[in-house]
This record gives sequence, structure tokens and C-alpha cells, in this order.
Amino acid sequence: MASNKQVILRDYVAGFPKESDLVFNDATVDLSVPAGSNKVLVKNLFLSCDPYMRIRMGKPDPSAAALAQPFKPGQPIYGYGVSKVIESGHPDYTKGDLLWGIVGWEEYSVVTLTPYSHFKILHTDVPLSYYTGLLGMAGMTAYSGFYEICSPKKGETVFVSAASGAVGQLVGQLAKIMGCYVVGSAGSNEKVDLLKNKFGFDEAFNYKEEQDLNAALKRCFPEGIDIYFENVGGKMLDAVLLNMKLNGRIAVCGMISQYNLEEQEGVRNLSTVIYKRVRLQGFVVSDYYDKYSKFLEFVLPYIREGKITYVEDVAEGLENGPSALIGLFHGKNVGKQLIVVARE
Amino acid sequence: MASNKQVILRDYVAGFPKESDLVFNDATVDLSVPAGSNKVLVKNLFLSCDPYMRIRMGKPDPSAAALAQPFKPGQPIYGYGVSKVIESGHPDYTKGDLLWGIVGWEEYSVVTLTPYSHFKILHTDVPLSYYTGLLGMAGMTAYSGFYEICSPKKGETVFVSAASGAVGQLVGQLAKIMGCYVVGSAGSNEKVDLLKNKFGFDEAFNYKEEQDLNAALKRCFPEGIDIYFENVGGKMLDAVLLNMKLNGRIAVCGMISQYNLEEQEGVRNLSTVIYKRVRLQGFVVSDYYDKYSKFLEFVLPYIREGKITYVEDVAEGLENGPSALIGLFHGKNVGKQLIVVARE
Repeated sequence: MASNKQVILRDYVAGFPKESDLVFNDATVDLSVPAGSNKVLVKNLFLSCDPYMRIRMGKPDPSAAALAQPFKPGQPIYGYGVSKVIESGHPDYTKGDLLWGIVGWEEYSVVTLTPYSHFKILHTDVPLSYYTGLLGMAGMTAYSGFYEICSPKKGETVFVSAASGAVGQLVGQLAKIMGCYVVGSAGSNEKVDLLKNKFGFDEAFNYKEEQDLNAALKRCFPEGIDIYFENVGGKMLDAVLLNMKLNGRIAVCGMISQYNLEEQEGVRNLSTVIYKRVRLQGFVVSDYYDKYSKFLEFVLPYIREGKITYVEDVAEGLENGPSALIGLFHGKNVGKQLIVVARE
Repeated sequence: MASNKQVILRDYVAGFPKESDLVFNDATVDLSVPAGSNKVLVKNLFLSCDPYMRIRMGKPDPSAAALAQPFKPGQPIYGYGVSKVIESGHPDYTKGDLLWGIVGWEEYSVVTLTPYSHFKILHTDVPLSYYTGLLGMAGMTAYSGFYEICSPKKGETVFVSAASGAVGQLVGQLAKIMGCYVVGSAGSNEKVDLLKNKFGFDEAFNYKEEQDLNAALKRCFPEGIDIYFENVGGKMLDAVLLNMKLNGRIAVCGMISQYNLEEQEGVRNLSTVIYKRVRLQGFVVSDYYDKYSKFLEFVLPYIREGKITYVEDVAEGLENGPSALIGLFHGKNVGKQLIVVARE
């Protein structure tokens, strides 16, 4: 037996989550897999903080419960992580293997492998933490959302909100690789600087300093927007709808600005989709996990050559996990937020 | 020269249009086409009242002006109509030919033919007035919207709002022909009766008598909605978003509930499109006019066999045109609203 610190959801959250909504539990874990089980015992190295986790912290929503199971109060929360196999009952994994996929917010997890629930990490010449983001769920979200949902073409104009986040920074770089004109929005001047000077966006703006989002978009897109990669929802979406071009596409990846509101903001400019023939399409990354190896083949060379870069915001220790996760909903993170649970 | 009564837009309209926003003008018209011109002089028989006309009555909207030209104050309004050729400078038309397409709200119009601007009427064994609706723009809207945008499959569940209107009644019948379960909403019990007993909808409800649209939809769609054919916008769309099924599709044809509002209602449930992978797609019928002859081949046999039916609300005389058009925005029409300008 070993000690196994866990992060527990105290109770369903309404409004903005607070650190006190997450409590620690000193559990113990049997460092073995029962004989005959095909489960895998892993030691968690990195955990990922992702906006969708807020949805799982809320009360079960009858219209979405089957699609996004809420966390259980009193139980550890869970999310994407990078882990090392300690003992395996599964034929595909052996001790020492590295994997990424869903694990508990705890030091050790026993995971059940289902198709595409976890992916073995085979390339370790790139930073291992990248598998919490760039080379994991967030990267696949950017890749599948951009190529499968946005139908991008060279020379088109692309707008990305939450553009310095885990997904947005890659969407922008993919759009540049395709030869698009790319603009991003973010919530601080430091992030705007990253967008322009590190990720190669053509333009970027700090939405908190713009009095009129419509005017900001018109300034950046005098001819309008072909593709909007939607991460925030609310007022930004309303302003974008006024600036879409004919046959524009909106890939709805997330709406982080809405997750903490008791009632979501109303979007008033939806009728613009009619004459502009706009397509707005929600998507979930897990539908595209069969393309993961194709994604790696595509993205690894760019990373190795330094042509795709990635900024991470690293919190040290599981004890700093709750504040890191909650900081995400206030935009405190600069780049992809992750937690180091253990270095090896 | 002949007298040519016209319906003129007095000034741009804000809010609900009033009859006084439309005024009559006693003009005259030269009953000939100048030598060398390829224009066509027509006598207007029927005029169509369509919701989109409200958009053209408003002030030019900079974000949509290029896509939906507003009517000009002081000039006749225009819309779809069925007309007879009096004199033609165009090689494809001769005196006595019937056509449908855009004409002024007046007794005689001089029209310039551009590709798909007007269609020669070749089948007159069906009511000629049908070419203002079922066999004209509205029918093509239903046909292209349903087959091209909704991606319907046999057995799917379909919801149509403004279902007894010019477009909705055909959408419902097309969905039944495809083997879908079809529910419609309308604004009076008389219209609900038509939906169930004349057009063959499986269920229908009067949205004005439902305290909770979400509950009404849950009652009609316990398993959810695969396809929503959107004609109204606002609160109905918000309720529909709560009831869409996984991979649902929303064809945004129109949003009549919003056209008369100074500020559009906010739609609060848009984030449901993410987990449900919903596609919401605006469309405009004119993009599909190349399929008009295919549409006729499809729909005429059904009409002749009585398997597709159509209800029209007929106003007699151009002098009753303004009240008919304005009545549309109050749901006064039962079925497709048209105006008889002349019987022949």
C-alpha cells in the first residue's frame, strides 16, 4: 500500500468555482493490479487543466448528462493526464510504459482501457508534458476542429478566440501553415504579445481593452472573417456574427465565457447566418481520436523543426492543482495550464 | 400608355410595419418594350407576400446590405410574382408566356431577365397561383433546405416552426414522404388543425398556448429532435437547442419572430451545440435555383396525385396588398399569403 493524495469535488458548483470547492483526501492505494484483471495501475506525472472540466463540476444537466457526465461529489475529479505504468494487467502495456488519457486527480490511478481512452506515448524526444496539451487532447482538438470542421482554404481569414490557450495557440499556427491570415484575441497584453511574436499570428487584440468588439474585429478583418474558431461564446460570438463573410464557418469548440454563468448570455445576431450562409458546427475531439496517429505524423516534424511552438503554464505539485484549475476560469494561465504531480 | 397602380415604401420601417408605411401611387406605363431592348413587359397576376420582405423594408444594415438590398423609399416595393408577358424583347419569351420571378408591386412591370431571375411557367394543369409559393420560391426553399441542408434520413425526427406557412407546409410533407416523424408549431388552433389533418404532420402545437416551449417539445419529441427547420428564431430556437439529438441539424431558413424587433432576442442555449455536435446552417434559396427543373419533376406528380397539398390565403386586389403583407407579421394568414392583382 502507498499513500495516494486525491483532489475531491466537495459539491456541485454554481457560478465561478472556488478553491474551497476542491478538497484534498489522503487515500491509500494497493500498488498492484488484481490477478486476472486487465486494468492498469499508473503513477500520474502531469495533469491537464481544461475548460470543459467546469461543465463536469456543475449539477447534472438533463439535456447533456448523457454526453458529459458530471463529477461525483465526494469523489476525485478526473481529466487528461500523462502517466507511467506501474503494473499492467493489459497485454498492450508493461511496466514503465508512458501513456496519456483520462486519470483521476491523484498520485496513482487504476485505469480501465477502452478504445481511444488512453494512448501509449512512443515519442519522447519532445517534452513529455506536451502530451497533456499540444500532443494530447488539446492538440487533437485544434487539429480536428481546424481541418475537419473549418474546411480551411489557403488565403482565407481566420479568427481564434482564447487564442493563447491550449487549443488556440495551435489553431493559429495550423492556420498560418495553411497560408491563412490569422487574428487572435486574448485577455492580457502579455498574451497578445505571445500571439504576435511567438505564434506568428498576423494580428491580435486584448478583448478586455476593446470597448467595442465589433469595431476591433472590423479593424482586424476589413473584408470579414471566413473561419471563426470559437472557444469563448457570449459577446465575442455576437460580434463575430456581424463580421462573418459569405459562406463562413464557425467551429464551436467551447464557450468558456459561459460556463460559470447561472444563465448564459443571449446571442442576438444569429439571424446573420441566413444571408451569409454561415455554418456553425459543434464538435467534440473524441470523435476524431482515430486520426491521432495521423496527427502525430503531421505535427511531430513541425515541433522538431521548431516550426510549431507551444507555451505551457506549469503548476508544481498536486497541492497547487485546485488553484491552477480555478485560475483557468479567470484567464490567469499564460499558455496551456498543467500540473506536475511527479517528475518520474 | 396605361394606368399602373403601384405600392410604394413611404420610408424605412422600424419595428412592426404598419399599413401606412405602404402608400399607393397612380403611375402610368408605356405598354411596349423599346426597340432593341431585351427587357420584358409583364402584366402581374399574383404577388407573393414573404417574410424576408420585412428585411428589405428596414434601414440598410451595413453587415448585410450587399446581400439583401433594402427597398428604396418612394419607389415600388418588389417581390416574387406570377406574370403574363405583354411584350418581349427577349428571345426566350413571347407575348402570352407566363413566368414567375421578381416583379414590382404594381399592375405592370418591365423586367430584366438574368440567369434564374425568372422562370417560364410550362405546367398549367396545376393552379397558377402555386407559382407564387409551392411551385415558386417557397417550394424551392422547402425542397433545397430540407434535402440539401438538413441531410434527412428515414425515421428521423423533424420539427418545423411556422409550419403552416408557405415553406413549412411543404417541409412537413417532404419529411413525411421521406418517412420521418414530423411535428409542426403554428400560432392558432386552426393552423394546428391544418397541420395534423390536412398536411399529415404526426403532431402539432399552438406555440401561443404553450407556457413552456421546452416542455411542449419534450412532449412531442421524448427522444429529441434530429432536424429543425428554423423559420422563426428567438425563444423557439432556444427551446429547440435544449432538445436536439446528437448530430442534429438546424437549417436556418428564416427568423420571422425577430424581423420586427429593434433588438433581437438573445439565444442562450447555443453551447448545447458542442456536446451534441449540432450543425446550424443558414441558407438562401437562390443558391439552389439550378435545381428548379429537378424540383418540378419531383413535386408535380405528387401534386397531381393529391399526395402533396397546399393551402393558400388569397387577398383580392393590389389595394389589399399592404394589409396582406403586414398581416403576415402578425400571423393573420392561414397558409401561403398571396395577392391577386389580375385574373388574366
